Amino acid sequence: MNIKPTAQDIEEAHERVSPYIHYTPVYSSESINKIARAEIFFKCENFQKVGAFKARGGMNAVLSLSDEERQKGVATHSSGNHAQAVALAAQLQGIPAHIVMPSNSAKVKMEAVRGYGANLIECEPTLQAREETLQKVISETGASMIHPYNDYRIIQGQATAAKELIESVNEPLDYILTPVGGGGLLSGTSLSAHYWSNRTQVIGCEPEGADDAFRSFQTKTLVPMVNPDTIADGLRTSLGEKPFDIIKEHVSDILLANDNEIAAAMKMVWERMKIIIEPSAAVPLAVLLRNKELFEGKKVGIIISGGNVDVGSLPF
Amino acid sequence: MNIKPTAQDIEEAHERVSPYIHYTPVYSSESINKIARAEIFFKCENFQKVGAFKARGGMNAVLSLSDEERQKGVATHSSGNHAQAVALAAQLQGIPAHIVMPSNSAKVKMEAVRGYGANLIECEPTLQAREETLQKVISETGASMIHPYNDYRIIQGQATAAKELIESVNEPLDYILTPVGGGGLLSGTSLSAHYWSNRTQVIGCEPEGADDAFRSFQTKTLVPMVNPDTIADGLRTSLGEKPFDIIKEHVSDILLANDNEIAAAMKMVWERMKIIIEPSAAVPLAVLLRNKELFEGKKVGIIISGGNVDVGSLPF
Repeated sequence: MNIKPTAQDIEEAHERVSPYIHYTPVYSSESINKIARAEIFFKCENFQKVGAFKARGGMNAVLSLSDEERQKGVATHSSGNHAQAVALAAQLQGIPAHIVMPSNSAKVKMEAVRGYGANLIECEPTLQAREETLQKVISETGASMIHPYNDYRIIQGQATAAKELIESVNEPLDYILTPVGGGGLLSGTSLSAHYWSNRTQVIGCEPEGADDAFRSFQTKTLVPMVNPDTIADGLRTSLGEKPFDIIKEHVSDILLANDNEIAAAMKMVWERMKIIIEPSAAVPLAVLLRNKELFEGKKVGIIISGGNVDVGSLPF
Repeated sequence: MNIKPTAQDIEEAHERVSPYIHYTPVYSSESINKIARAEIFFKCENFQKVGAFKARGGMNAVLSLSDEERQKGVATHSSGNHAQAVALAAQLQGIPAHIVMPSNSAKVKMEAVRGYGANLIECEPTLQAREETLQKVISETGASMIHPYNDYRIIQGQATAAKELIESVNEPLDYILTPVGGGGLLSGTSLSAHYWSNRTQVIGCEPEGADDAFRSFQTKTLVPMVNPDTIADGLRTSLGEKPFDIIKEHVSDILLANDNEIAAAMKMVWERMKIIIEPSAAVPLAVLLRNKELFEGKKVGIIISGGNVDVGSLPF
């Protein structure tokens, strides 16, 4: 499939994944609204399976396989939430999963992947080693590659989070803010807003220390990320080509926040909402608080992308 | 009023407070159920106003005042959640609140009390200074004393959390577990179970380092707590007389957990459920995990009492 997801594609993806994922709640906080001078609706994907929206895309990709592909299983490389998402989806469907993870991945994430019954292959912690190891696994097993974001099945799946947010809020949102790393969530969100809430502006939120999407959006040319430096570990990756094509067309802007602002926003959500969110998930609130005048008096949806964080080592 | 709360008293309290408090959600975690080998329903009072169930009792007490009492306002001493609960309730009702707080109270809690417009009176951090200062305030202002637990209006209010839990779960619970400090929550819970889920056993959960309720329950005699030593800061207080009378009649048992077990249970909830709970709120899960054989295969309600914790200083 090589055409951008249609409304029907996303609807079908939603029906496909719904039996296997959580329809996560939307929360608001009076005290954060007061500080932000806006009405914010947080879509809590930290409560999603595997603790992140990645479960949506992983599930949709696995459920979209042909019978022949299912027999040979799936493969991917990831140090984080996508690895768990693909492993869980494969386990639920009873098909093999080969997950290449850099040897410096968090132990708890490697254990989770093994816990889902996946075949975990460790490699050196370089992009080259990851890609070579994955290629070797695929040529040996014939497994289907599931890329974490440069794949329309993934984008369709991630789009379902914003679709649910729009359904849940029941009144027109002025903005939806999401983090942007590889671009799967942002591009999917912008499609869902385009199809079901056309007057809503979608804004990507990125750390200053990994600002390739910002620079790509400004210059209309894909700029890869070199040496990212940010506490938002889920957003260090480079923007993908397929997401970028959609983002150029349907996203209004990409705005930045620095690590201090991200840590402060994360702490604010922990203290005031009593929910655990990871640094990447705090970037949209950090962007909103940095640009208060832009969002003043507006209704703003924020996708809390995940809650996987080492609680023994916090940035505050 | 000096008779134990009836079912009608608790129903009326629930109607009285409902416009001002959150009907908090009940969450489950597949992975914690698997570890515990039980089906656990967590009633999330960490999402309650002021971040704790204390909002229920404080609100009910303030709403139960006569017109004459309202004019003179309310007074209490507390270093924690009860102070905020009474201050918020008084603010919502537009009546004066005088809150005596020990000078070593958490700054953030003192700010919250001031933020609710209460008259905050600092005193030396001893029980004697707290009681003397409060007595002075009451004799000067004529304000009504709202004790944090030794008061039937408070017990009625706290009882509404278990009433909602029983309503939400929709199938008979084998057990309900709550922390026990002064006994307001435990006694109220045991009454709600008695009235609306008679076959449910209610168990109080207490830190080993503040085991006065355990010892009182064993000996059927109120034993005050001297020099409590536990990370569960909300449970260092001594059991009250009125709660104890109810607990003796309606509570099945009181079980203990140590601080290591409490910290581990707290971390488990943070990591697996992505919600912030305070150490006191983790005591029931710690007790359950220490006594797995007792709860194996059972349906267990746990009241997550609160989520007010200094996230910059964690016990793990």
